[in-house]
Amino acid sequence: MKIAIAQINLTVGHIKKNQQLILENVRKAQAQSVDLIVFPELTVCGYLPEDLLYHQQFIDDCLDSVKTIAEQCHDICVVIGFPRNHPNEPEKLHNSAAFIQNGKIKMIYDKHQLPNYLVFDEHRYFTKGSHDGIIEVEIKDENYKFGVNICEDIWNDAQIIVEQAKQNIDWLINISASPYAVDKIGSRIRMLQKRCKDNGANLVYCNNVGGQDELVFDGTSVIINSDGKLLAQCETFQSQLLIFDTNDKNNEISERLDHQTELYQALLMSTRDYFHKNGFQRAIICLSGGIDSALTAVIAVDALGAENITGLLLPSKFSSKHSIEDALELAKNLNIKTHSIEIESLHSEFEKTLTPMMGDYFINLTDENIQARIRGTLAMAFANNHNAILLSTGNKSESAVGYSTLYGDMAGGFAIIKDLFKQQVYELCEYRNTLLPVIPKSTVSKPPSAELRLDQKDSDSLPDYEILDDILKAYIHDFKDAEQIAALGHDLLLVKKILKQVDRNEYKRQQAAPGPRLTKMAFGKDRRMPITNGYPHNY
Amino acid sequence: MKIAIAQINLTVGHIKKNQQLILENVRKAQAQSVDLIVFPELTVCGYLPEDLLYHQQFIDDCLDSVKTIAEQCHDICVVIGFPRNHPNEPEKLHNSAAFIQNGKIKMIYDKHQLPNYLVFDEHRYFTKGSHDGIIEVEIKDENYKFGVNICEDIWNDAQIIVEQAKQNIDWLINISASPYAVDKIGSRIRMLQKRCKDNGANLVYCNNVGGQDELVFDGTSVIINSDGKLLAQCETFQSQLLIFDTNDKNNEISERLDHQTELYQALLMSTRDYFHKNGFQRAIICLSGGIDSALTAVIAVDALGAENITGLLLPSKFSSKHSIEDALELAKNLNIKTHSIEIESLHSEFEKTLTPMMGDYFINLTDENIQARIRGTLAMAFANNHNAILLSTGNKSESAVGYSTLYGDMAGGFAIIKDLFKQQVYELCEYRNTLLPVIPKSTVSKPPSAELRLDQKDSDSLPDYEILDDILKAYIHDFKDAEQIAALGHDLLLVKKILKQVDRNEYKRQQAAPGPRLTKMAFGKDRRMPITNGYPHNY
Repeated sequence: MKIAIAQINLTVGHIKKNQQLILENVRKAQAQSVDLIVFPELTVCGYLPEDLLYHQQFIDDCLDSVKTIAEQCHDICVVIGFPRNHPNEPEKLHNSAAFIQNGKIKMIYDKHQLPNYLVFDEHRYFTKGSHDGIIEVEIKDENYKFGVNICEDIWNDAQIIVEQAKQNIDWLINISASPYAVDKIGSRIRMLQKRCKDNGANLVYCNNVGGQDELVFDGTSVIINSDGKLLAQCETFQSQLLIFDTNDKNNEISERLDHQTELYQALLMSTRDYFHKNGFQRAIICLSGGIDSALTAVIAVDALGAENITGLLLPSKFSSKHSIEDALELAKNLNIKTHSIEIESLHSEFEKTLTPMMGDYFINLTDENIQARIRGTLAMAFANNHNAILLSTGNKSESAVGYSTLYGDMAGGFAIIKDLFKQQVYELCEYRNTLLPVIPKSTVSKPPSAELRLDQKDSDSLPDYEILDDILKAYIHDFKDAEQIAALGHDLLLVKKILKQVDRNEYKRQQAAPGPRLTKMAFGKDRRMPITNGYPHNY
Repeated sequence: MKIAIAQINLTVGHIKKNQQLILENVRKAQAQSVDLIVFPELTVCGYLPEDLLYHQQFIDDCLDSVKTIAEQCHDICVVIGFPRNHPNEPEKLHNSAAFIQNGKIKMIYDKHQLPNYLVFDEHRYFTKGSHDGIIEVEIKDENYKFGVNICEDIWNDAQIIVEQAKQNIDWLINISASPYAVDKIGSRIRMLQKRCKDNGANLVYCNNVGGQDELVFDGTSVIINSDGKLLAQCETFQSQLLIFDTNDKNNEISERLDHQTELYQALLMSTRDYFHKNGFQRAIICLSGGIDSALTAVIAVDALGAENITGLLLPSKFSSKHSIEDALELAKNLNIKTHSIEIESLHSEFEKTLTPMMGDYFINLTDENIQARIRGTLAMAFANNHNAILLSTGNKSESAVGYSTLYGDMAGGFAIIKDLFKQQVYELCEYRNTLLPVIPKSTVSKPPSAELRLDQKDSDSLPDYEILDDILKAYIHDFKDAEQIAALGHDLLLVKKILKQVDRNEYKRQQAAPGPRLTKMAFGKDRRMPITNGYPHNY
């Protein structure tokens, strides 16, 4: 038997475009005499359409698409995902998989396990199914038995998998939309191998690939036998139609990417898909000469092409000569066009305008924010005028403690490095420079500074990033409290101060641009904290 | 027996402050010989702490607080809400109610029905309980039997209520955090009356009151007998300790507010609590002379006091004389201080700076956005410098179609009227003017305009608000598709254009300030749409 995994990059909501892509893959598979082709979870509508699912017309359109696809699928079995109304209680929805053969839907399985943690809200939309997912079909005069299931069904206690595996099936078929996170790919594959071995079942596992808003799916679909042996593996962060012949011993196993390459590819795919799926080609980026804007620019160039990137240099009287040189050197290395605008005249015009009304005092922070907002306004004007998206350049460490200006450096439509701690920013710059040294050395080596007042350094108001990132990780990723974090070797007062800063700046994060989710606790859909939050961390 | 309903305004996360408030209410009740006092859902931590619930220290602190409270509660029964670890599987959480008597926790009931729709994500945090909620106690030498349950348990099929009512109980006790929405209070009370009558059970229903980020809880707690008769009712949008004597025939039933008063009070409570619970007293508002900023200012004054409000007039060359006069008249009527800043010199400085770099063209929209962002920057400078929150003034109609500037008029920490359609803004202004005519007549009567170019009117780019609001309601609130909306009497092409505009502007709404949720489909936690959304509304 020949099995195809169609690891394809779908567009949420664009049922017609997805349908074309699905049928193209079916035809390619047919041309190679494939017997069974498997697509990712919620294929026809993309994962996850969120509240589009509340629109009955949308659900109807999805079903129509599955029927249209089915009619064109003869001589091949197809497993495809779609949302559907519960057959008896139409106000309820299922997250379903159709098994298609000879132009007809032969079986529909509805997902049993609905994840409702981290970024997942599937209880919001779906009702648990009850079908056993078993289907027997004849392929080339032989009988085959499959156990169809969906994503979360194969995780945790995997009850339905255990049931299906007991029924003498030839293959488990799992259609998934399992988003990327650092360190997840390896553990996902190990889990799948264990599942196969424990249940003595062969598995075809098709995962989604591509970016959808903050989520990025890595693909890395696999075929595993009942001994837990990996027989085939798709590329990570690439669309692929993998064809696997069960009679052939030489199968395709893509190489696993090393840690930094994987992370970098996640950022590229997420950025590219956010732009292109939203109809944008061009990006604007403010180049400060610092490391955050440097990394953001390099990723943007790699994702969208140098010809689509414009760098803005917006120096003030507090900008060092070095900063401007570093920014220009980066732009030259990346071959992107730049514009330079001194913000001094605008800054002094704002000061002149405001000073008489501010009474006795004009707070430093107010003045720093004004500079950042002048830059935000200039950069957004470029973006508006060139049908481009402004990239904001904040990292996770800054965003955590609110070391950023709302509507200033936080302005923008996409924030590529928002889920990278400052130390990861350095690591990724180093990695990218090993491929080709584009980021100036002094950008990497100089002490970080916002340059919003004379001789300002990040270290004036923040602890060293090594310490800060350690505290932030313990709090945000590991849910540790102040005492527990101090026990890791940090000053308790400092820890409490940082934790309060994180809490108090939630209001800024809730107005931040979206950006690629790289961890299981990204700001946004993963970490949902109240703004109004009286928890003082010192009971 | 004397029963007290403690309809109190809690602060999410502030366990110590909540504990004080709880104990104060217990003491007041004790002073009046109350036998049973009932608090709202998740009393000790406030509703809803969201991902604070993932911090074990927080859960431990909540339990400690319940124990401390219990120790101080003798001669009175107390029903209080808190989150707790599942007794056997501590990694799971319950949303629980403790029944306290004689200084001890006598029974813990864990919520059965966990809502996971609209703003609710309870499956994210909690596991369904299995306890029957029945407790028998002796009060003043008599035996009583209660059926304790929590919020959602009493809605829908209310299975646990049916079970409890079968057990010859004296009272059902439901502790709730049921958020306000327009038209909800009446239907909630009718539902409770029906539940009592259908099950032949008496009910003590204590609801939460106060604002928490976007949610506002109206209170309106009730006592209903087994015939479905309302015996007592707390105030709407006010803290109250209601004491009900089962032997007394003259009980307290607060009057229901009329529609506009109710809506207005919701806005006041939400605004006041957002400011005060976050430690802010002062607000900045840009007064354009238009209806949106007028209503926002009036609500801010009523909620926070005129002495805490500063109005900014930021006219441009496109501002009509009328606008400035209307804004000043409003400020005078409200007795708030104002500052006026002509933005022309800043505007021309931006134009001068940018024009050489924009190539052949300078798009109108770019220029309009620059003006809005100059205003945003000036207003934020005031807010930063005065430790105030900038109020943004956009309504739901504008926000739906993206008729607003990110980082411009959308800048701000709180958006009071974000869940009011434009027509509701007019109605509410009319209502407020019947109390005291503070909003200038010409503000109400003149055609709406953003005044970002010469003689601009909203009607240049949008249909009449009567039509627009009707289309938006059908799409956003009723999930109708384009054809169905057209069938209500609208032009199909216009409908499709509006629907696409709503979809395409999701990116702006995801960077918007929070504001009071007044409907069951507010932008924010209710309506969760993807930004990347290829659904074209014309399959």
